[in-house]
Amino acid sequence: MGKIKIFAPNTVSNVGCGYDVLGFPLEGLGDEVLVSEREDSNLVIKDISGADLPINSEKNVATVAVQALLSASGVNRGFNISIQKGIPPGSGLGSSACSSVGAVFAVNELLDRPFTKKELVAFAMEGERSSSGQAHADNVAPSMLGGFTVIRSYDPLDVFNVPFPSELLAVVIYPQVEVTTKYAKKILPKEISLKDGVQQWGNMAGLISGLMSNDFDRIGRSLQDSVAEPVRKTLIPHYDEAKNTALEHGAIGFNISGSGPTSFALTSDAETAESIKKACSSIYEKNGIEVLSFISKINPEGAHII
Amino acid sequence: MGKIKIFAPNTVSNVGCGYDVLGFPLEGLGDEVLVSEREDSNLVIKDISGADLPINSEKNVATVAVQALLSASGVNRGFNISIQKGIPPGSGLGSSACSSVGAVFAVNELLDRPFTKKELVAFAMEGERSSSGQAHADNVAPSMLGGFTVIRSYDPLDVFNVPFPSELLAVVIYPQVEVTTKYAKKILPKEISLKDGVQQWGNMAGLISGLMSNDFDRIGRSLQDSVAEPVRKTLIPHYDEAKNTALEHGAIGFNISGSGPTSFALTSDAETAESIKKACSSIYEKNGIEVLSFISKINPEGAHII
Repeated sequence: MGKIKIFAPNTVSNVGCGYDVLGFPLEGLGDEVLVSEREDSNLVIKDISGADLPINSEKNVATVAVQALLSASGVNRGFNISIQKGIPPGSGLGSSACSSVGAVFAVNELLDRPFTKKELVAFAMEGERSSSGQAHADNVAPSMLGGFTVIRSYDPLDVFNVPFPSELLAVVIYPQVEVTTKYAKKILPKEISLKDGVQQWGNMAGLISGLMSNDFDRIGRSLQDSVAEPVRKTLIPHYDEAKNTALEHGAIGFNISGSGPTSFALTSDAETAESIKKACSSIYEKNGIEVLSFISKINPEGAHII
Repeated sequence: MGKIKIFAPNTVSNVGCGYDVLGFPLEGLGDEVLVSEREDSNLVIKDISGADLPINSEKNVATVAVQALLSASGVNRGFNISIQKGIPPGSGLGSSACSSVGAVFAVNELLDRPFTKKELVAFAMEGERSSSGQAHADNVAPSMLGGFTVIRSYDPLDVFNVPFPSELLAVVIYPQVEVTTKYAKKILPKEISLKDGVQQWGNMAGLISGLMSNDFDRIGRSLQDSVAEPVRKTLIPHYDEAKNTALEHGAIGFNISGSGPTSFALTSDAETAESIKKACSSIYEKNGIEVLSFISKINPEGAHII
């Protein structure tokens, strides 16, 4: 009976002006998903470590996603799934997406790849639907595909990568406070002013062209969010102070990762990254808030066998 | 006394998802602006042919724009300006922008280039302010700079070009009906749904990355507008029929130019362009509406001396 172990990376989604349409995966942080074939046709979560999550196969995002894959392929096979969470849910780093992505990638390998990586995104999205009520792709797509990933359209699903400078570094700052994705969605306005919209798609033109032409200044100028940041930053303690500090220390840009509370800075320089990490972390430490912070390249590969 | 003649091209602005932030200039269609130095310090419109426009120097966009340049440079010089309009105002092809752009470019040359082309954009915008009440850059910037031009931000002004496939052809369809820019602005909603916004910046990511990677399919899929097209198309007779016809004849995309009534199709194939031009024109002809239609490459140069 085959078995396989997959690493599926955590992700920064939205990336400033890309609310709901843009994300990139990190290096070194993600879920390890071990999948082995069963003799029967059951899907069984054997164990989950690193977070308190449902092992009921109708509720766990990984089994929901795998079930979507099996239904689409018409295959009647069973699998045991063990998940080592890199980071618990509620970080803003696409934790649930990692498990869905790892599980469907693993099962696809064990079935001799009936689907491309891009096709697997749609199955992993079903995991997201089961956890948040909406089949978002802005975490699952970058976690699966690697690199800066655009979800241009959901219906039909149109997902693709854009080239980016390999020197780019993300400094990730995760203060240990709780922000639920559902609440962070709820406080977003249902309507935005046309003026804010114009700014947002102007910045998107700047960010994409900046990434594709290695123009760090333009990436930085474009890393702005007229839509989610103004309301969501109120859920993140010391956000403005952290942002100002990061920019003072040379970050080209700073914004919220997903629905927070994690934020991230971008830079192309390793020393600058260290200095941002240290300065932003100390803001939380001196205020008695535990903080997890690290520096990562943009993961170009996405989900892969380990 | 020096004199100089400038060609400043007409432009397609908005370009689907790029409302207020994106435009490109055409080849062969634009204003010819002849500027000569005077012995005194007056700005005088000598004549305008091809349209009925004010020759009062406080009202004409060209002299208003030149005055902005002269004020910024602190130079006290006078000029005579003659304008041969390529196309009258009200087309959706940035007619007023051509005159402002041509005039400031000409005066800058006669003053031995105190400003870069990019810096001239801000002066030409003052012409737009005088004609429409708002200092828009989505016509003046591409007419000045050439190529696909992004206005990422107005405050501070951040304008740049994005690379595009040189094979790209625009089929321009201008039914001779009147749509005033002011009215076309007025009917736009002041607020848009977050959902429409997400679509718009997702399409912007697709359009920019498609242009920069010569991906014609992606350019076509992204050439959509959730904001202005749904309301403005009601001002353009037979718009849906023209759009469907263009797409059936192989256009990769179709949308409104500026505030209309001109629409445009994109294709990379000359034969397809001819067939789109013929089919769309005949829709208007058979309905008794005069139509001006032509095929143009994306003008890479913008304003230049002739």
